[in-house]
Amino acid sequence: MTYCVGMYLDEGLVMLADTRTNAGIDNISCFTKLQYFHVPGERMIAVMSAGSLSLSQSVINMIQDGLPDPETGQVETILTVPTMFRAAALIGEAIRRVHRTHDEAMREKNVSFDVSIMLGGQLAGRTMRLFQIYDAGNFVEATRDTPFLQIGDHKYGKPILDRAVTMQTPIQEAVKLALISMDSTLRSNLGVGLPLDLLTYRNDSIDGIETCRITEQDPYFTMLRERWSAALQAAHRDIPPPDWKSNTNPGQPPLNR
Amino acid sequence: MTYCVGMYLDEGLVMLADTRTNAGIDNISCFTKLQYFHVPGERMIAVMSAGSLSLSQSVINMIQDGLPDPETGQVETILTVPTMFRAAALIGEAIRRVHRTHDEAMREKNVSFDVSIMLGGQLAGRTMRLFQIYDAGNFVEATRDTPFLQIGDHKYGKPILDRAVTMQTPIQEAVKLALISMDSTLRSNLGVGLPLDLLTYRNDSIDGIETCRITEQDPYFTMLRERWSAALQAAHRDIPPPDWKSNTNPGQPPLNR
Repeated sequence: MTYCVGMYLDEGLVMLADTRTNAGIDNISCFTKLQYFHVPGERMIAVMSAGSLSLSQSVINMIQDGLPDPETGQVETILTVPTMFRAAALIGEAIRRVHRTHDEAMREKNVSFDVSIMLGGQLAGRTMRLFQIYDAGNFVEATRDTPFLQIGDHKYGKPILDRAVTMQTPIQEAVKLALISMDSTLRSNLGVGLPLDLLTYRNDSIDGIETCRITEQDPYFTMLRERWSAALQAAHRDIPPPDWKSNTNPGQPPLNR
Repeated sequence: MTYCVGMYLDEGLVMLADTRTNAGIDNISCFTKLQYFHVPGERMIAVMSAGSLSLSQSVINMIQDGLPDPETGQVETILTVPTMFRAAALIGEAIRRVHRTHDEAMREKNVSFDVSIMLGGQLAGRTMRLFQIYDAGNFVEATRDTPFLQIGDHKYGKPILDRAVTMQTPIQEAVKLALISMDSTLRSNLGVGLPLDLLTYRNDSIDGIETCRITEQDPYFTMLRERWSAALQAAHRDIPPPDWKSNTNPGQPPLNR
């Protein structure tokens, strides 16, 4: 499994990925799932992947080697596409090509074709965008209504995002929320594991990129996990106890005898 | 979808279920998924169900009508089984019978056979127990290591339980945690909906049962949801902001060009 979360904020982008890859529960490895393509002053495009590692690595290679544009026939790569939309379409086309190559043989082995990609970034003079590309090559874009996207095992980490993330969330706050969301997933899904790769990008900067790898020993992440746990414990303790006697109890389950 | 959580505590049992049933997203209804069988001074057995409503209703009917014990041939019902273990086995046998009746025709319609049951309770002079019965009729029991079970869409509501529930958690605290866990699920899964059915049972009391139905207007649940949201907001705001400059950044994702 995998967990990656991307946030699309007024201030910029936050992208966070775990690094655990597993072929069965008895065979786990560490592979980066977050990569970025930066041409100073011209483009910053970051990509996170979930699903089969063999498929996502093929897709990432293919978008670097380039594919012919279906209309013009000209070969485009992730470093030459003129817009973020065309970058998403390029990844979609790469996924379809990988599907054509591998799906039949994988199906014979009862392995499902599973790959999804998150794409965030900006080209100079254009708007910053965040996309999610599905395993059929179609894609959606984050908007103001729901300014985050998730790939991999999204459920454990979604409640805190649903509650707290808006476009106005500052990047530093969003990094905390992404790490809290990841912490919930790490605790409940062994297929998601440390270290983590984090990238933040400042809107309209092209070059305002910060990345870091967060390990088991990272003092900030350790502090955040401890404080979050302690705050949750305090939060439910502080809620007054239920007073069921006062409940009007209109729908007591029927007694079946 | 459904979400039900059961907790097995030194003080007793907490069982909480939503009531939403849906056949597609455009056809939702309200059905209780929590029922209990109480013989004063003799037995208290509570059952929660997830999966196809047609299947779970058949199972619940069958355990009331009775099934022959595979060894003695004598017909047993949920009101005559001598132990909680035999109650779990009775439900497992009912699931297998329902499977024999319906699975082939359902498979032809591409409908999967999906039912799971949670069973908690106590017979006088015996220990209180909590079981989960799978759709093959096999079952597991909650123990001290993990004193809660979930059926239905368990992921959204699991992180808070993983962090906070132990056997020593008092019933009143456990009710709060069950409601917080349900709140996270209600927010993220439209297939889980109010009202809720709650049952608490005091260990070794047989008759110490309290039930209530929690509606959208319930003042306690409304207060709990608001306070929990506010506490989470305060909790992540109180965590100091990340200081990425101080990170040793040992594993920056490779720049692929």
